Amino acid sequence: MIENTVSLASISKAAKRLEGKIVKTPILKSAYIDKKLNTNLYLKAENLQIIGAFKFRGAMNTILQLSKSENKVVAWSSGNHAQAVAAAAKITGREATIIMPKDSPKNKLDGTAFWGANIVTYDRNNESREEIGKLLAKKLGATIIPPFDDVNVIIGQGTAGLECVEQLGEIGVVPDIVLCCCGGGGLIAGVSTAIKAKFENTEIYSVEPEFFDDTKKSLKEKKIIENSMKHKSICDALLANKPGNITFSINKKNLTSGISVTDNEALIAMHSAYKHFKIVLEPGGAVALAATLANKIDIENKHVLVIASGGNVDKDVFESCLKTIPI
Amino acid sequence: MIENTVSLASISKAAKRLEGKIVKTPILKSAYIDKKLNTNLYLKAENLQIIGAFKFRGAMNTILQLSKSENKVVAWSSGNHAQAVAAAAKITGREATIIMPKDSPKNKLDGTAFWGANIVTYDRNNESREEIGKLLAKKLGATIIPPFDDVNVIIGQGTAGLECVEQLGEIGVVPDIVLCCCGGGGLIAGVSTAIKAKFENTEIYSVEPEFFDDTKKSLKEKKIIENSMKHKSICDALLANKPGNITFSINKKNLTSGISVTDNEALIAMHSAYKHFKIVLEPGGAVALAATLANKIDIENKHVLVIASGGNVDKDVFESCLKTIPI
Repeated sequence: MIENTVSLASISKAAKRLEGKIVKTPILKSAYIDKKLNTNLYLKAENLQIIGAFKFRGAMNTILQLSKSENKVVAWSSGNHAQAVAAAAKITGREATIIMPKDSPKNKLDGTAFWGANIVTYDRNNESREEIGKLLAKKLGATIIPPFDDVNVIIGQGTAGLECVEQLGEIGVVPDIVLCCCGGGGLIAGVSTAIKAKFENTEIYSVEPEFFDDTKKSLKEKKIIENSMKHKSICDALLANKPGNITFSINKKNLTSGISVTDNEALIAMHSAYKHFKIVLEPGGAVALAATLANKIDIENKHVLVIASGGNVDKDVFESCLKTIPI
Repeated sequence: MIENTVSLASISKAAKRLEGKIVKTPILKSAYIDKKLNTNLYLKAENLQIIGAFKFRGAMNTILQLSKSENKVVAWSSGNHAQAVAAAAKITGREATIIMPKDSPKNKLDGTAFWGANIVTYDRNNESREEIGKLLAKKLGATIIPPFDDVNVIIGQGTAGLECVEQLGEIGVVPDIVLCCCGGGGLIAGVSTAIKAKFENTEIYSVEPEFFDDTKKSLKEKKIIENSMKHKSICDALLANKPGNITFSINKKNLTSGISVTDNEALIAMHSAYKHFKIVLEPGGAVALAATLANKIDIENKHVLVIASGGNVDKDVFESCLKTIPI
């Protein structure tokens, strides 16, 4: 069944399902960045997506396929999936209950509340959001919308990749390299499936925050490796403890390897995106760009697609990015 | 002759000339802003244009029509037209000399230098940039690219309006109101021509900084009125002393009336654009949005197109916008 496989066919079908309901986000260029890095960099601006992040694609794709009687949904998320499920539920006339860590960025808590969701907060260090979520879903008779390890969610995220294929095709560009952020791996699993179907020689790399490079390690060891979760990072959107079973089974086929960047490198990328692309990125949304600016990979004279995944950032964090020295 | 008239036909021809050479900038939506203002607001993000402002459209449209022997150009500008002419000259293999005020925003001086232009600075208070420019052009045998009061420049800027017509058409929207910033009036002259050709009942308003509302006054008096130029404003892109002869002859036909906003209202609009649209605007680029947020016009239950014209802002100014309270 097409619907139960992450493939170009199922992603194309999702793109039709989502037409007019999502933003076809632009690919941006900066002559300055290209000259400075001696490269051709194409930035897919998913911060301009509804709710300010790609997550709306996967949530909406999944929720649009629910039956009418499935009128309650539950999700857990530190923020972007939370807002995405809340928005998709609101737009399709459903009730959403979202489990969010107490220390989620304020703008993400506000954004989720804006869409009318019931918010249940929990302690990131001492409670399991999955347990709370599953219990609540049972009690409410609600459908769980998983954050990443779900075929329909991955297919939805893949529509961002399909758009890139089409947009690069229009200007006659075949990407040599694709760089994409990675938390649980849903976005890169979907995007890499679309990219590889059209451009089989393109090298695709996951980019993760330092200390949260579970996909990098897992790709290297060819099995799922967990993070120690002893560290902190400002990249709140990318703090998964390990790759998903479904996402990793796709990513180990499609990805060349993994890259990690420091928080400061993410801040520099945010400042550079502000300055040269005139857009607002959150730390997790800027890590793929950070990988290019911090010379984590050879991009000279290549065509490089960078996925900028979101822009939901609290003001104090954005102010701190403006204190770094941009490219 | 089509080429010497600002009309839908000449703007359409310019759009073909510029195809693939300019960014077809997106129209962005914010569910939050729409709900808060009880309106339907469509934001044309010209900050995502090449050089970070709409000015590239007019400069490139004009320079593409020069003969091969016209290989030197001269322009005067506080920054966005400067960068636009420098970029268009560089891309088409010409030499650009740009006269810029000493106190231009640093990012605009840097941006102009990046494109390889020769920069001549002058004192905004004691020297005439037009005199310096004309003298230099004569000496160099260079062609002057005027900042706004030129048919080909206006036609080029009009392609932003034509894109809006097409983009709104795709989603079945007829704008009730269009709000557009106004310095010398080139952008709004071009945009209003395209809009009025398709939507004759749409009301179009110029938006200017307080104390620099020469177009507002001129529209009211039905003749060109000059600003006193005794005041200052952070909207450096909009500090023309009076409307152009050509731009005003078009604008007095197309515009309903003028609106003015304070510097602080522009800063609040910049912060709100950062927060809800995830984009970076400069003060002058944010005045049209500011007019809606500051309730300068009744937009309830209407379809409102807002042109956000540029995003070239120095860091200290952007930091000061983050200190305001956004919507």
